[in-house]
Amino acid sequence: MDSKTVGILGGGQLGRMIVESAHRLNIKTIILDAEKSPAKQINALDEHVNGSFTDPVAIAELAKKCDVLTVEIEHVDADALQEIQDKTGIEIYPLPQTIKLIQDKYLQKEHLIKHGVEVTESVAVLENTEKALLEVGEKYGYPYMLKSRTLAYDGRGNFVVRTADHVKEALQVLHDRPLYAEKWCPFTKELAVMVVRSIEGEVFAYPTVETIHTNNICHLVYAPARVADTISERASILAKNAVKSFPGCGIFGVEMFLLPNNELLINEIAPRPHNSGHYTIDACVTSQFEAHIRAVVGLPMPKNFTSLTTTSTNAIMYNILGAEKPNGELEDCKRALETPHASVYLYGKSTRHNRKMGHVNIVSSSMDDCERRLRYILGQTDESIPSSEQSSGKELAGTSQKPLVGIIMGSDSDLPVMSVGANILKKFGVPFEVTIVSAHRTPHRMSKYAIEAPKRGLKCIIAGAGGAAHLPGMVAAMTPLPVIGVPVRGSTLDGVDSLHSIVQMPRGIPVATVAINNSTNAALLAVRILGAYDPKWFSEMSTYMQNMEQEVLDKAERLESVGYEAY
Amino acid sequence: MDSKTVGILGGGQLGRMIVESAHRLNIKTIILDAEKSPAKQINALDEHVNGSFTDPVAIAELAKKCDVLTVEIEHVDADALQEIQDKTGIEIYPLPQTIKLIQDKYLQKEHLIKHGVEVTESVAVLENTEKALLEVGEKYGYPYMLKSRTLAYDGRGNFVVRTADHVKEALQVLHDRPLYAEKWCPFTKELAVMVVRSIEGEVFAYPTVETIHTNNICHLVYAPARVADTISERASILAKNAVKSFPGCGIFGVEMFLLPNNELLINEIAPRPHNSGHYTIDACVTSQFEAHIRAVVGLPMPKNFTSLTTTSTNAIMYNILGAEKPNGELEDCKRALETPHASVYLYGKSTRHNRKMGHVNIVSSSMDDCERRLRYILGQTDESIPSSEQSSGKELAGTSQKPLVGIIMGSDSDLPVMSVGANILKKFGVPFEVTIVSAHRTPHRMSKYAIEAPKRGLKCIIAGAGGAAHLPGMVAAMTPLPVIGVPVRGSTLDGVDSLHSIVQMPRGIPVATVAINNSTNAALLAVRILGAYDPKWFSEMSTYMQNMEQEVLDKAERLESVGYEAY
Repeated sequence: MDSKTVGILGGGQLGRMIVESAHRLNIKTIILDAEKSPAKQINALDEHVNGSFTDPVAIAELAKKCDVLTVEIEHVDADALQEIQDKTGIEIYPLPQTIKLIQDKYLQKEHLIKHGVEVTESVAVLENTEKALLEVGEKYGYPYMLKSRTLAYDGRGNFVVRTADHVKEALQVLHDRPLYAEKWCPFTKELAVMVVRSIEGEVFAYPTVETIHTNNICHLVYAPARVADTISERASILAKNAVKSFPGCGIFGVEMFLLPNNELLINEIAPRPHNSGHYTIDACVTSQFEAHIRAVVGLPMPKNFTSLTTTSTNAIMYNILGAEKPNGELEDCKRALETPHASVYLYGKSTRHNRKMGHVNIVSSSMDDCERRLRYILGQTDESIPSSEQSSGKELAGTSQKPLVGIIMGSDSDLPVMSVGANILKKFGVPFEVTIVSAHRTPHRMSKYAIEAPKRGLKCIIAGAGGAAHLPGMVAAMTPLPVIGVPVRGSTLDGVDSLHSIVQMPRGIPVATVAINNSTNAALLAVRILGAYDPKWFSEMSTYMQNMEQEVLDKAERLESVGYEAY
Repeated sequence: MDSKTVGILGGGQLGRMIVESAHRLNIKTIILDAEKSPAKQINALDEHVNGSFTDPVAIAELAKKCDVLTVEIEHVDADALQEIQDKTGIEIYPLPQTIKLIQDKYLQKEHLIKHGVEVTESVAVLENTEKALLEVGEKYGYPYMLKSRTLAYDGRGNFVVRTADHVKEALQVLHDRPLYAEKWCPFTKELAVMVVRSIEGEVFAYPTVETIHTNNICHLVYAPARVADTISERASILAKNAVKSFPGCGIFGVEMFLLPNNELLINEIAPRPHNSGHYTIDACVTSQFEAHIRAVVGLPMPKNFTSLTTTSTNAIMYNILGAEKPNGELEDCKRALETPHASVYLYGKSTRHNRKMGHVNIVSSSMDDCERRLRYILGQTDESIPSSEQSSGKELAGTSQKPLVGIIMGSDSDLPVMSVGANILKKFGVPFEVTIVSAHRTPHRMSKYAIEAPKRGLKCIIAGAGGAAHLPGMVAAMTPLPVIGVPVRGSTLDGVDSLHSIVQMPRGIPVATVAINNSTNAALLAVRILGAYDPKWFSEMSTYMQNMEQEVLDKAERLESVGYEAY
């Protein structure tokens, strides 16, 4: 595609996946790393450099063969890169100065603070002495995090100082490292955003995801994050602002903490593809790896390339770590191969306990379906292999999932009628929300609700109202989503007033009207609407209809056998 | 993943994509082909064999290093493979006997006929003489196809004998080939199905696709094929039956003709991944290449792995052929990079006119959206880059597209009311169908319609009826799809009878009822239902609502400026 040759410092799994993307675009890549490293295995060139990405001589050798240099790891010799850039003018992305800044996590933090980006509060430890660490304890209280400023990853280089008594132990572990201390951050979730910066300086954020760590190693990634849209959006803006502060181009992984008060703080930034972005290979049109290679060689980016493939795409990434028993991790992989909607990626590394050997991406139209598949892959269930996206996800209904259906009513007096429909949705396992929105008494709240509904991921709205029932029609007038109207019977006119107010809408604004007081049918209609595109709900509705038929047939049988009088 | 080493005869683009899939599963592959062939470029082993897949010595050398052999091309030395299999017991898939059979297109046809599979009628040409060819002309009439039994691909080895006068020329071109003649087959479309056969003999068919050839080279693939479901289904069964006739395992590409009378005939079969299956990389969960590698090493297959990712997935594959001007084809690739929902694959081959250099996959929720993106990639439009799936596909409405909405009515007397809604769908560009289905007079037709609707791809049904209006409710009782009811006003009761008959459904079976005679709103509601999951229709509806607002504002302005009396 492009005649530029790209040199990559580091040939681990990230390098390997960059190389795969480069191959698809026929972009030549040359790797600097040990012989037969994962990236080199899939790249049959004679020109690879065997050696370390911390060795200036090896880096210089690589640079001679390339038009652009990039990295799959930040722990490279940044000074050597800077010197090469100054001397030869070769393009290096991320910029050597960015790599250097990011290598030292404390300098990274200071840089972000200078650029107005919210980060966890921290202080440099100037001397590695007990006295200095006790002073931190006085300043921040206990526990606090003691961290190596450099060369830390997957929890290595971090120490939780629980009390003043732990100071000695902390020093034993980290005495030979440049240190800084971080105020304890009691986060509720860890979020991450991949941001790619084009050569023109434009930044594009992939969806905000949720990372789940076990023993300090990334275990799972949920995409999108199971948080309110407003939080996802703030995380995205925070990440983009952080990446804007670094000139140059390429992809960045931004890790952050979500605090109990919903505040977001940046934890750290990686100037390269990131484990939290592996889900993009299957869940987005353009993966983080392809985005990175396009950015560094200056190829065009499509519009919206960072978005999930469809509005109903959900993904879970599961890291395959080396099992205690060599190759024991392949059991998970075999189950993943059996699982529809799961894809297996192995990195060509020799098996070792807790080593990142590969990952599995699960992509489905709902997060609970992804979780069901994950449980099968992890061997945590006796259920048979999940088939297509056609079985139930009931177990997770009403949890942190984004609502697909909004139930609103003009007054709490409508609740006895409307709650019947809510129970139906609950039974089906459809994520939903219930609230009061009055057309006449809270017109502005109604308009806000209607306008924001699609952005929040709602697929349809059920609105119940009585008397001169305006709510369903007014909401329908302000959202392109399908609106289902439930006429609620009032004390006069037997509900015919509500029925006619809801159903007799003028041409242009339809309301899907159901029978008077029949919120059951409103809920069932909502499930049918979801099922029109999502096979899971289609299948649930089919089952429901079969059961209904069976129930009536059973009753008929009973009636026929016991006779109409005894019945 | 698997400790078996797989040897591949042939290292072109098909081999390259098999190797990519094998890498992801960490399965070792060794290639026999010329040095630096596309597959070898992405596979850094010392063990590759340089040489030809027609050379028995080279094949034997490859076999020594492998546990399983497979091919990316059928023009290999099948006898050598048979001998190796007999001597060493090494696994070879497809089986050497299958390769040998398929190599000779005439024997292939005889084999299929023997197994009851419908193929194009043909006859062996026993002597390459004018006399023999004239005899064929007498038997089949003109034109007929003269074909080489072996080593034919991309139209090479074929000759159309238009009249008796062309016999001489045909012989000049093909005199040194073993020949057979095929009766002229005036097909309306060319279809293809990828079928994978597992080691247990189970066969799985990918969706039926439509291939479009230009100058005998595959130009485009539409997935799924734009034909009736019944034809797709018959094509799938035909392909599976054909593949069942070959023992062994691996993937097969089955090409067939659709005749004007909707008959299907198999044209030919390739015992390997196939150009018509490249779309599976992006449009299916498991690609043809991964399916093939899993089959030949005996790894598990997930359920439903051959289906399109979602029920609304549509894809177009576009072959990048070498331009007349070297590398001129990269212009298309650059535009593809700019295009959301398009992915570019280049094979690492040196540029040559009409050579298959790569392909582009376009995946979207509608075929007309795919086509719009394709036009941009081909430089056939002045429109700007198509952004996300949010613009109109009006231009293709009412064409061969599968209907998304079904409009039915109890009687043709309802047509004046219902056709207004049909016009709205037409204006939006929503593919739809209109027919008469009466609950009371054609109850069986109604039940068939309701049951088959989701299988035919309908997303919702609009049913109009008057009087004791049973049609909407009865259809709703027999399909899990959302059903929209339009009460049609009769000569008595002003339509209230129809309204109540439709809206007052019992708990369990909802009908989305709109105002009396208001099929406009029924159509708009259908568009909203489509828009709940498909951003294109969502965006169309938003635009419609904005225009409606503007129209009213314009009228208000006119009224205010000219005064209410003059208005």
